[in-house]
Amino acid sequence: MRTSIATVSLSGSLTEKLTAASRAGFDGVEIFENDLLASPLGPEEIRARCADLGLTVDLYQPLRDIEAVPEEEFARNLRRARHKFELMRRLGADTVLVCSSVHPLAADDDALAAEQLSRLADLAQDFGVRVAYEALAWGRHVSTYDHAWHVVETAGHPALGTCLDSFHILSRGSDPKGIEDIPGEKIFFLQLADAPLLAMDVLQWSRHYRCFPGQGGFDVAGLVRHVLRTGYDGPLSLEVFNDVFRQAEAGPTAVDAHRSLLVLQEQVGVADLPAPVVPTGVAFAELVTSDAGPVADVLAALGFTRGARHRSKPVDLWQQGEARVLVNTGTGVRRGDGTGLAAIGLESPDPPGAARRAEALLAPVLPRRRAERDAPLDAVAAPDGTELFFCATDRPGLPNWRADFEDTGQPAAGTGVTRIDHLALVQPWHHFDEAALFHRGVLGLSAQESVDVADPYGLLRSRAVTGEGGGVRIALSVGAAPADDTVHAQHIALSTPDVVTAARRFRAAGGALLPMPANYYDDLAARFAFADGELETYRELGILYDRDAHGEFRHCYTRTVGRVFFELVQRDGGYRGYGAVNAPVRLAAQHAARRLTGG
Amino acid sequence: MRTSIATVSLSGSLTEKLTAASRAGFDGVEIFENDLLASPLGPEEIRARCADLGLTVDLYQPLRDIEAVPEEEFARNLRRARHKFELMRRLGADTVLVCSSVHPLAADDDALAAEQLSRLADLAQDFGVRVAYEALAWGRHVSTYDHAWHVVETAGHPALGTCLDSFHILSRGSDPKGIEDIPGEKIFFLQLADAPLLAMDVLQWSRHYRCFPGQGGFDVAGLVRHVLRTGYDGPLSLEVFNDVFRQAEAGPTAVDAHRSLLVLQEQVGVADLPAPVVPTGVAFAELVTSDAGPVADVLAALGFTRGARHRSKPVDLWQQGEARVLVNTGTGVRRGDGTGLAAIGLESPDPPGAARRAEALLAPVLPRRRAERDAPLDAVAAPDGTELFFCATDRPGLPNWRADFEDTGQPAAGTGVTRIDHLALVQPWHHFDEAALFHRGVLGLSAQESVDVADPYGLLRSRAVTGEGGGVRIALSVGAAPADDTVHAQHIALSTPDVVTAARRFRAAGGALLPMPANYYDDLAARFAFADGELETYRELGILYDRDAHGEFRHCYTRTVGRVFFELVQRDGGYRGYGAVNAPVRLAAQHAARRLTGG
Repeated sequence: MRTSIATVSLSGSLTEKLTAASRAGFDGVEIFENDLLASPLGPEEIRARCADLGLTVDLYQPLRDIEAVPEEEFARNLRRARHKFELMRRLGADTVLVCSSVHPLAADDDALAAEQLSRLADLAQDFGVRVAYEALAWGRHVSTYDHAWHVVETAGHPALGTCLDSFHILSRGSDPKGIEDIPGEKIFFLQLADAPLLAMDVLQWSRHYRCFPGQGGFDVAGLVRHVLRTGYDGPLSLEVFNDVFRQAEAGPTAVDAHRSLLVLQEQVGVADLPAPVVPTGVAFAELVTSDAGPVADVLAALGFTRGARHRSKPVDLWQQGEARVLVNTGTGVRRGDGTGLAAIGLESPDPPGAARRAEALLAPVLPRRRAERDAPLDAVAAPDGTELFFCATDRPGLPNWRADFEDTGQPAAGTGVTRIDHLALVQPWHHFDEAALFHRGVLGLSAQESVDVADPYGLLRSRAVTGEGGGVRIALSVGAAPADDTVHAQHIALSTPDVVTAARRFRAAGGALLPMPANYYDDLAARFAFADGELETYRELGILYDRDAHGEFRHCYTRTVGRVFFELVQRDGGYRGYGAVNAPVRLAAQHAARRLTGG
Repeated sequence: MRTSIATVSLSGSLTEKLTAASRAGFDGVEIFENDLLASPLGPEEIRARCADLGLTVDLYQPLRDIEAVPEEEFARNLRRARHKFELMRRLGADTVLVCSSVHPLAADDDALAAEQLSRLADLAQDFGVRVAYEALAWGRHVSTYDHAWHVVETAGHPALGTCLDSFHILSRGSDPKGIEDIPGEKIFFLQLADAPLLAMDVLQWSRHYRCFPGQGGFDVAGLVRHVLRTGYDGPLSLEVFNDVFRQAEAGPTAVDAHRSLLVLQEQVGVADLPAPVVPTGVAFAELVTSDAGPVADVLAALGFTRGARHRSKPVDLWQQGEARVLVNTGTGVRRGDGTGLAAIGLESPDPPGAARRAEALLAPVLPRRRAERDAPLDAVAAPDGTELFFCATDRPGLPNWRADFEDTGQPAAGTGVTRIDHLALVQPWHHFDEAALFHRGVLGLSAQESVDVADPYGLLRSRAVTGEGGGVRIALSVGAAPADDTVHAQHIALSTPDVVTAARRFRAAGGALLPMPANYYDDLAARFAFADGELETYRELGILYDRDAHGEFRHCYTRTVGRVFFELVQRDGGYRGYGAVNAPVRLAAQHAARRLTGG
């Protein structure tokens, strides 16, 4: 299907918006009146710019407060509309959006509304324009899609149809099934937006919190299925009012937006995307650093062995059980701010298939920087810049990245770490919703609920994306505002069946655990009953404790190196979370540790 | 009255919060459990720290989900409470907050609730602790203050009283008059918070959008009056959950908080502050710059005359009608980023009285940098750093700042500017609510409604504060997120009875007006009927137009110099606004102009 986006969904000047929409692959745009008014380009110039960019002008909007008003008022409205129809002719736009009236003088009179809209459509027809009438959720008298359709049907004018907007329909809890009663050719336009499920004034909700399909809580796909059954053949168009998108760069937002429509089209069965290839595990995490010393010390104390070295690049493979950490000191170092997590190797049942899907869903494909004889590795960039490698570890019939590493012969030691439990990635402020949709749509992971976490210097939001069976768990987090705060580092959580032993061995090997405040343990004593000595052990080692309906969670943290730290976690009995209840204490401890070291 | 603040209202570590509360003049604190848990200080150390800082620990909170539960559950709750009472003894806190239960097992049984709270109070008494029971607005069965009081009264226990929280009472729309039926000695604590009037889920509203009294829409003073009539003699304590305050520096937030309680106490008649002295006009606006050339060119083209020079400082006085602009090139230049608006002279009926009030309301008093023979000038700093001078211009019996300037003898020219219409100040992100309260409380101005303004790169919020009769008008604005954006400069709006003539003369004198897009004028033609040629004149000069129920507004803008620009405004027939409807077009034009000049 053709795709379109309202200019109000993107930031910047009209020219910047059009360019971003075109580059992201949209076929058309809805031009929002304020964007046109503020543009130094005249209507003909905008039309030419769109044509150059391969964009059609699918809608001009909005006309407001038109119908069911006293005749004198309506005459003024027709005068205003004539100006706009002239403008649309210059602009090359053939459909105008008319929102249901919120005017205090508007009458609750469907016959009058139909009669006046019919006269508006008469005028529009003279200019080659079609009128799409839409029910605002907060319209004074017409606030549901079936009511708007009733008015349109009553008018019975060929140049008058209806516009459906998923936000206005789903925010009111209307049943979208009734859409199927509308003939497809009378649905002149379809606007799509999702939104988080908030209990708030619908006007504020609509103006500030809309998001792209798949980023909120609405069943947008369900609604689109109903629309398609009517025979509707217009574009799928995004109309999203969102305070964050208003500030974010238009280019990435447009890509995020177009990706949401691709996923949506797949959901409703009208897109032919390569099938999702869900990763089954984490093959490796790759750290980049200009000085491998400090992080090597921590890995060694954690019981990792520097077991192999890449044969053509300055990359060490540190291993323990199935946990593998690459330490890259080569020219491939892409982040200037010290040691950081740069890449994740995802164990994939079909690495080229996974890459094909990622590319189809607009993930930037990374150039292969490898020697001739190295195993081919497909990689794409996630929205936060983390490189995702689709790979196979020692699996017959597939290129084996592990074979590019030569064993050092160092003996395995080990503190009981078995695998990577999860990776925690800090997201750029403007890209949190995008990140969840990316991991879900591109990688086929499931997104869990968002949780708020209180940091001493602001609220964080955190959301996990996981594969089936817990083979891949990624915790995405974002601060409440843009901030440069090294406390909010990325981290690698390592799974162990016995966190106490692992922590003791780490400390015995010279590792520094993050100390936790004594008050925390007094509170644990008030909340839970522990076996004799258990709490004292946790207190001594800085181990945190949580429990859910499924099981228990014990975890502790290393000091931060550059922009990365490690966590040792012991999950028992099917505990599903990440110890979010302990995060405020951990974050405060990290702030305190940073103050002490002046870091 | 004694004043107190909950640690959750401030950002940072517990130590930082306590220090900020003490410095701002609070007498005590409520210690929020999570702040204690995350602190490396033990309870005795916190107690000692508070004592050193002159703070009492007025409340420890919260105990949750205590009452009206099955006996087995209640036994666990008592065990948990015993731990907390022991902690409170170490902490030196004698009152604990118990929130009404939200537990799924809680029964709708007031008798059971009273009986269990009575047993809790028995235990508390052994530790010298009083229990203050509070109705959460979203409590499962107890959600109103009168219901909570009914339970407390039924229990009839000397160590059990109630805690009143203005948010929980006013957010539900309860009538606070019934508070007077509670004996004052049974009101163990009073927590105050204001909030903007939002239609949203009350839990989210409470957790993210509370603000200090006078910054929202609640009648907090009215509620406090009812409480005082009961004979309540405990502290006024602020408990504010706010996403912005969580990120802002604790020091300024604590000052803002304490100021809100001082204003509140004045409102309810228990504080003895110097009376407000409302400024009657703008004596001058002071620009600081290291290079007076560019701004002098603009002022000259605007028809200002460099009529006088300060006799001891490198400050020129530019004047036209009653509009005066000082241009300061001296060492007093306090902002490094080019030409900016540094100070405002407010025409005050009683300058020393105005300064006394400002100081009593915690405004930083600025040192007087003046020569011996200069007129004394009292000045304080506004939250955004702008210096406010309280002064008199040529008024008998008062020191005359104008007398420190020696006339240059330059002849007056003029383009018809009569006075400063308003000043527009960009506020630091974290201090918008504080700024409005400051201008209202300290200066005695009235705050108007907030409006949202769409900038191409994010939403702005704007709010005007005005004196009676329009002598002083200040428009405060803030972006949707912290940003360094020179488009959002401060500006000085100059009043003229004929903006067309003023604009023509400005242009004839070599001044550059900000060009506005042609599309804007096409839209004006659609919206309004103009006299022949009128619209063409506006289009030629870049004049914007607005109309309200009272009158008309015509305005145009100069190019930006450094971080400041000028606006020429013509108000007719009592128009009350600031042309907010035109602000998106103006902002887009400024962005476009900046791109063109590469600025």
